[in-house]
Amino acid sequence: MKKVVIALGGNALQESGKPATAKAQLEVIRNTSRYIVDIIEEGYQVSIAHGNGPQVGRIVLQNEAANHITPAMPFDVCGAMSQGMIGYHIQQSLRDELKARGRNKPVVSLVTQVLVAQDDPAFYHPTKPIGPFYTKEEAESIKREKGYEIVEDAGRGFRRVVASPNPIKIVELDTVKNLVESDYIVVTVGGGGIPVIEKEDGKLYGVPAVIDKDLASERLAEDLDADILLILTAVDQVAINFGKSNQIDLDYMSVEEGYKYIDEGQFAPGSMLPKIKAAIKFAESKLGRRSIIASLSQGKEALLGNGGTVITKERIAAYKELIEA
Amino acid sequence: MKKVVIALGGNALQESGKPATAKAQLEVIRNTSRYIVDIIEEGYQVSIAHGNGPQVGRIVLQNEAANHITPAMPFDVCGAMSQGMIGYHIQQSLRDELKARGRNKPVVSLVTQVLVAQDDPAFYHPTKPIGPFYTKEEAESIKREKGYEIVEDAGRGFRRVVASPNPIKIVELDTVKNLVESDYIVVTVGGGGIPVIEKEDGKLYGVPAVIDKDLASERLAEDLDADILLILTAVDQVAINFGKSNQIDLDYMSVEEGYKYIDEGQFAPGSMLPKIKAAIKFAESKLGRRSIIASLSQGKEALLGNGGTVITKERIAAYKELIEA
Repeated sequence: MKKVVIALGGNALQESGKPATAKAQLEVIRNTSRYIVDIIEEGYQVSIAHGNGPQVGRIVLQNEAANHITPAMPFDVCGAMSQGMIGYHIQQSLRDELKARGRNKPVVSLVTQVLVAQDDPAFYHPTKPIGPFYTKEEAESIKREKGYEIVEDAGRGFRRVVASPNPIKIVELDTVKNLVESDYIVVTVGGGGIPVIEKEDGKLYGVPAVIDKDLASERLAEDLDADILLILTAVDQVAINFGKSNQIDLDYMSVEEGYKYIDEGQFAPGSMLPKIKAAIKFAESKLGRRSIIASLSQGKEALLGNGGTVITKERIAAYKELIEA
Repeated sequence: MKKVVIALGGNALQESGKPATAKAQLEVIRNTSRYIVDIIEEGYQVSIAHGNGPQVGRIVLQNEAANHITPAMPFDVCGAMSQGMIGYHIQQSLRDELKARGRNKPVVSLVTQVLVAQDDPAFYHPTKPIGPFYTKEEAESIKREKGYEIVEDAGRGFRRVVASPNPIKIVELDTVKNLVESDYIVVTVGGGGIPVIEKEDGKLYGVPAVIDKDLASERLAEDLDADILLILTAVDQVAINFGKSNQIDLDYMSVEEGYKYIDEGQFAPGSMLPKIKAAIKFAESKLGRRSIIASLSQGKEALLGNGGTVITKERIAAYKELIEA
């Protein structure tokens, strides 16, 4: 049975521009679950990672807004809350969809911590904006009061930024492995995982940071010795010269080509670029492994070789043999 | 190896009267973890259930306070968020404490749904107060707007009440069992579990309700075929004539005595009564099973027969033989 780690992007969890009610989110996730069960029905063993950007952003907003009534939770705890929230909806919807198709496969969401390095250079250059926008005056007072790093965000106001360190180790990996091997569907590393560092005392400490969810999914895929990392997003394929008259949608990309395109600045940072980086990292981690970037609705077909962009270490000829074998 | 389900009360998660900061909560949970690891070191196989009353109350507060910025999540989703938050702190602290003692036992918190009956009579008589206090005017407008059941709460203002239905089935039981059998420490049914009903379409739907955490722990203990249900709370022992000159602290209570004391009104509803009910239910579910109610710090000694109140179905003589065997 081929092992697939599915990385769900924001569009699989919430429709952008619509009010972020629980009802609306659940509806989107129910729809997403249908696509995932389609994949499961093809005989793939599926584990699921997901983002949490907009969701944890709203939790931070709520925490800040109520700070005069009850203390705002730090960012790592907000992340844990988002794992509970999103995990609940995913495991409920997946269970329902599996059951509707006569499959009683257990689904479970794990609260998941991911270890990052205390001296990860990212901590010296926080770049990831989170939470509400502030005025200049608010920003300065919060900076003084809480020691947050705050920057101006594209003229829209001031915003807290946190580091985006590399995922080193999934703390609960052993549990995830056990469950995946027992053929459970596991939802894990939500939002890239709750970032923790291990201090000299051997204890874990949550840190205000955001681990890129594609990189965390990649870590998971490697650690589970998955065959495929399937990154589901809003577009059908990876493109070069994106949005230009000479745009080319790619059916296939070798790791080597990927590096070249990155150097050319083909991929938008914070959007396609982290997906490409994760895809390359997984594809080059071991021969035979492949990454696929596809839209949510094309996920199954992409796995079957009929869509999306496939990234492998081998050259295309060898890859074609792989698919046909 | 004796299987124990530990039900953690509010005092194991947060010091009442202290500010509910993440730091303060984590400190309490770290302390709790030391007591739990003491039990694990005695050779018991431990699963952990916990309450969430104050925590989910604060999450609801935050959601209401920010409702003009981002839609407030319904109560079931707030419960899921509290599972993420509390589960994160428990699994981090337990892992740290185990590691400090040279034990690398995996700990994991599961997002857990618990099935309740759509026609549970509790839904017709909501009794459990949750969230903020309202003025009479606010209460009436919220009642109209959202259809909440709102009652006056002991002269302190108006408050939303939700049902407290019986736990029927732990949706993720299969996963919990698998992990417990593999000797993992599982944190589950947080806050009594996220209450869901199964509708005619076979799908699960979250409902605004609070499942009593002691009853959910009892359900878990039965389903795991545990030997012992250990309910940890703020007092060392169960007492009759509590607070009176003739107070008697009980080392032992048979199920039969328990029923008698309940009839006499010996136990405070919403406090000791639900613990006694859960303890009786487990003790009478199968011969040889026992429940223990003890303080957090006395938990280990109580398991070893040196403290707390033991509840069994057998008469005391038979129980003594059981302990000595």
